Amino acid sequence: MKLYGFFRSSAAFRVRIALNLKGLDYEPAAIHLRRGEQRAPDFLKLNPQALVPALVDGERVLTQSLAIIEYLDERHPAVPLLPGTPEARARVRALAQVIACEIHPLGNLRVLQYLAKELKQDEPTVQRWFNHWIALGFGAFESLIAGHPDTGRFCHGDRPGLADVCLVPQVFNAKRYALDLAPYPTLMRIFETCMGLPAFERAQPDRQPDAE
Amino acid sequence: MKLYGFFRSSAAFRVRIALNLKGLDYEPAAIHLRRGEQRAPDFLKLNPQALVPALVDGERVLTQSLAIIEYLDERHPAVPLLPGTPEARARVRALAQVIACEIHPLGNLRVLQYLAKELKQDEPTVQRWFNHWIALGFGAFESLIAGHPDTGRFCHGDRPGLADVCLVPQVFNAKRYALDLAPYPTLMRIFETCMGLPAFERAQPDRQPDAE
Repeated sequence: MKLYGFFRSSAAFRVRIALNLKGLDYEPAAIHLRRGEQRAPDFLKLNPQALVPALVDGERVLTQSLAIIEYLDERHPAVPLLPGTPEARARVRALAQVIACEIHPLGNLRVLQYLAKELKQDEPTVQRWFNHWIALGFGAFESLIAGHPDTGRFCHGDRPGLADVCLVPQVFNAKRYALDLAPYPTLMRIFETCMGLPAFERAQPDRQPDAE
Repeated sequence: MKLYGFFRSSAAFRVRIALNLKGLDYEPAAIHLRRGEQRAPDFLKLNPQALVPALVDGERVLTQSLAIIEYLDERHPAVPLLPGTPEARARVRALAQVIACEIHPLGNLRVLQYLAKELKQDEPTVQRWFNHWIALGFGAFESLIAGHPDTGRFCHGDRPGLADVCLVPQVFNAKRYALDLAPYPTLMRIFETCMGLPAFERAQPDRQPDAE
């Protein structure tokens, strides 16, 4: 498998963690988002969305990080990233989507660029925007996991899964502009537990071949 | 089942379509987002994310529209909304996520309110923002479905599924500020096909009891 990504893309980071947790080998291919390589004709042929990650598995090109991870989970079920019942899967998917649908899209590079270039917002305003949506989403995430009987060492039980895979890259983003993370003790306890695992540690941005 | 929603919420609209396609009865409960009812203490107890939809099924509260729909699909599989192979499911989930992770989060009510109130952007600028992200995402969506061998009467084959369920409410949003939809002929052909079905037609905003 070949994973087109960018060291700092948190959607690509999610897929790297999932591949590592499952012990699946892959060849990394760097698409430099700040240099606009995602809009190069060859890459657009692969993924017309002009986004990373894109995972090539044989003849097939897979896109959208959550869809890729569910595909990996179905094709390589030995280390499951989703729990065994519809109710539990709904909980884990909802947690993943708090990150992937409520927080992350608002801090995407192209969104920050639009705020700066089209709307002429200065750097502190863009940083406030970035942190505002993370804080709002992390508050919701913390409420969903703190004291919940299904929360364990990880977001759901005692094995890392899809929710953890989404949470960790978002915490990396939160640290970029020094968001105060004290209001989210359960979330941060789980983050630290995850980062103690090689699958998460090896997937982090500054361990990638294209890191700057 | 009881569905907490808002007539104009496109995430709630998705769940209404899914319930209708599966022929599942539900009791609607209106949460008026513009009046801030999603932040009322009673609703926050139900869903600390302060978002609709929330689906109550027995003792269980389900949140995040895609997680709810996958749950319904697993619990009530007679009318499936996802296809039968991991590869096909990955395609459909990716299409759904183009809408749910790339377009919709940027046009959410609270985001538009932040642009207007915090960033002091005028109404035409907010409308331009709204349409910019829809146009970008619809362009990607059209590229993924136009001429693809798996595209049929609907986004995937000849039965409506998760991708269609996400697409239709987003087209309703696109029409609000009169986005030019001519560049997306495949997408619009599928939209019209969907709207010919009672499950989609009955789920639309102005057919809801709380419609204004």
